[in-house]
Amino acid sequence: MTEPPDTDAEKQRRIEQDLMDAVLSSFEDTADERLKTVLRSLTTHLHAFIRDVRLTQREWDAAIAFLTEAGHITDDKRQEFILLSDVLGVSMLTIAVNNERSGNATEATVFGPFFTEGSPHAELGDDISGGARGKPCWVEGTVTDTAGNPLPGARLEVWEADEDGFYDVQYDDDRTAARAHLFTDERGWYGFWGLTPTPYPIPHDGPVGRLLESTGRSPMRASHLHFMVSAPGKRTLVTHIFVEGDPLLESDAVFGVKDSLVKRFEDQPASAPVPGGREIGEQGWTRTRFDIALPPDDQ
Amino acid sequence: MTEPPDTDAEKQRRIEQDLMDAVLSSFEDTADERLKTVLRSLTTHLHAFIRDVRLTQREWDAAIAFLTEAGHITDDKRQEFILLSDVLGVSMLTIAVNNERSGNATEATVFGPFFTEGSPHAELGDDISGGARGKPCWVEGTVTDTAGNPLPGARLEVWEADEDGFYDVQYDDDRTAARAHLFTDERGWYGFWGLTPTPYPIPHDGPVGRLLESTGRSPMRASHLHFMVSAPGKRTLVTHIFVEGDPLLESDAVFGVKDSLVKRFEDQPASAPVPGGREIGEQGWTRTRFDIALPPDDQ
Ligand SMILES: [Fe+2]
Ligand SMILES: [Fe+2]
Repeated sequence: MTEPPDTDAEKQRRIEQDLMDAVLSSFEDTADERLKTVLRSLTTHLHAFIRDVRLTQREWDAAIAFLTEAGHITDDKRQEFILLSDVLGVSMLTIAVNNERSGNATEATVFGPFFTEGSPHAELGDDISGGARGKPCWVEGTVTDTAGNPLPGARLEVWEADEDGFYDVQYDDDRTAARAHLFTDERGWYGFWGLTPTPYPIPHDGPVGRLLESTGRSPMRASHLHFMVSAPGKRTLVTHIFVEGDPLLESDAVFGVKDSLVKRFEDQPASAPVPGGREIGEQGWTRTRFDIALPPDDQ
Repeated sequence: MTEPPDTDAEKQRRIEQDLMDAVLSSFEDTADERLKTVLRSLTTHLHAFIRDVRLTQREWDAAIAFLTEAGHITDDKRQEFILLSDVLGVSMLTIAVNNERSGNATEATVFGPFFTEGSPHAELGDDISGGARGKPCWVEGTVTDTAGNPLPGARLEVWEADEDGFYDVQYDDDRTAARAHLFTDERGWYGFWGLTPTPYPIPHDGPVGRLLESTGRSPMRASHLHFMVSAPGKRTLVTHIFVEGDPLLESDAVFGVKDSLVKRFEDQPASAPVPGGREIGEQGWTRTRFDIALPPDDQ
């Protein structure tokens, strides 16, 4: 019995398989077991992608040019690779696998590029806007564990864009505005005056912006207010809250929206009592509530 | 009948699946069908990778930093993204899928970064070394179609490193050496004097070099001589030939070696007749043969 001669298709399949096996074997001597695992998985999936789409040489050239341009536009203020990760849902997926569901714990979402260390300290009830323009919003809630027990002294970092869609760090004048940290009281309660969130675009004048354009996608993010919440023995939560009724909820450029994080921001009548007795101008104000539950830090 | 309550694991799986579906849907309005296909496949495989390894936030940070550094070291002379593609076997796989097996056609391998347009023209039998140092090598063969019919006037571009492991373009003095183009004669024959190939490392002082180091891999390429061969109506072939017995054949940094491309480079005794009657110094010379078959250009 003789074996049938190999067809070109069989030879081709074997060439592609042998190549992947050779790359996988090349990582055999990697001292760090975790690095070996990650590189082997990356190689497997990357090769499968190229085989599946039969990537053309021209497309490979375009990919190299895209990465090169992304590298050249990236500096200490602009991070095109993070934008790329964001618009492919990679950032959000990484958040998801690092914040696995844990009972009724509050859901996480993307960190974003606009957090800064060393935010001003605010007392409960303070206005954190720091002069940033926008409609005032009273934000309050509690921080508890997943069994509902209050967490006194939990630390909240909050930050947001102004009504023009810019964070303080996007201005040239070193201002600090619309960001602060504060601590819950003995009942786990917090409250502060911020701004009613408004939408803004991710930077879209680079290769990632062109990618969005060529796929008919908008660079706009749904309106949101950022939170980072931490307490001893608890998993730190990085999240936002979104605005109920925002038409951008369905098309957030970075896939950050989760139903449980969409909150009602209620316009308040002129007659409504104002928390802290603050003077409100004619633009009115809104209020919202965000109760936060942190799971144990079991990592 | 009531459905059993979802477990955290089920909820988690659904979150990850929904996220991928949302990203895939976001490409729905892409005008270019091919772009849509490529982006959907890329997303599917990238998400599968992250889910499989449960990528940590710290690893994601490291990946962003790696790409950023690769972008910053890349300029018009150094291309770290191509190196990255090379060491992951992605370049070689792209070559493979764009040069599918076709009968007994000569196999392709990576292009590499050292080809230049506008090489000097050489007559058959010329020395192409242009003063580059190394042991002379007489290279000859034929160019035919896959049925064995000679291809007169086929164009060959050849280029290689000197014995110190450097291509001409890696020197600062604008020299042109060890590269040329020539044409087959009416019998499809070609022959020229080049250099016996010697090994060299890919640039390894950047992030890709560190990746190789942390995986215990060498940056060395197996010794080789580059060819690009074209003829009307035929698929252009980009390939190398390698040196039989080179210990680096098993560990070429870019996975470029194929058995069919490994050739004997025979050291010639002092008594051997020298093609063209050239004066050979005391270093001796080698000779090799490379017969090339080009498939039809059916794309
Ligand atoms: Fe934001
Ligand atoms: Fe080379």
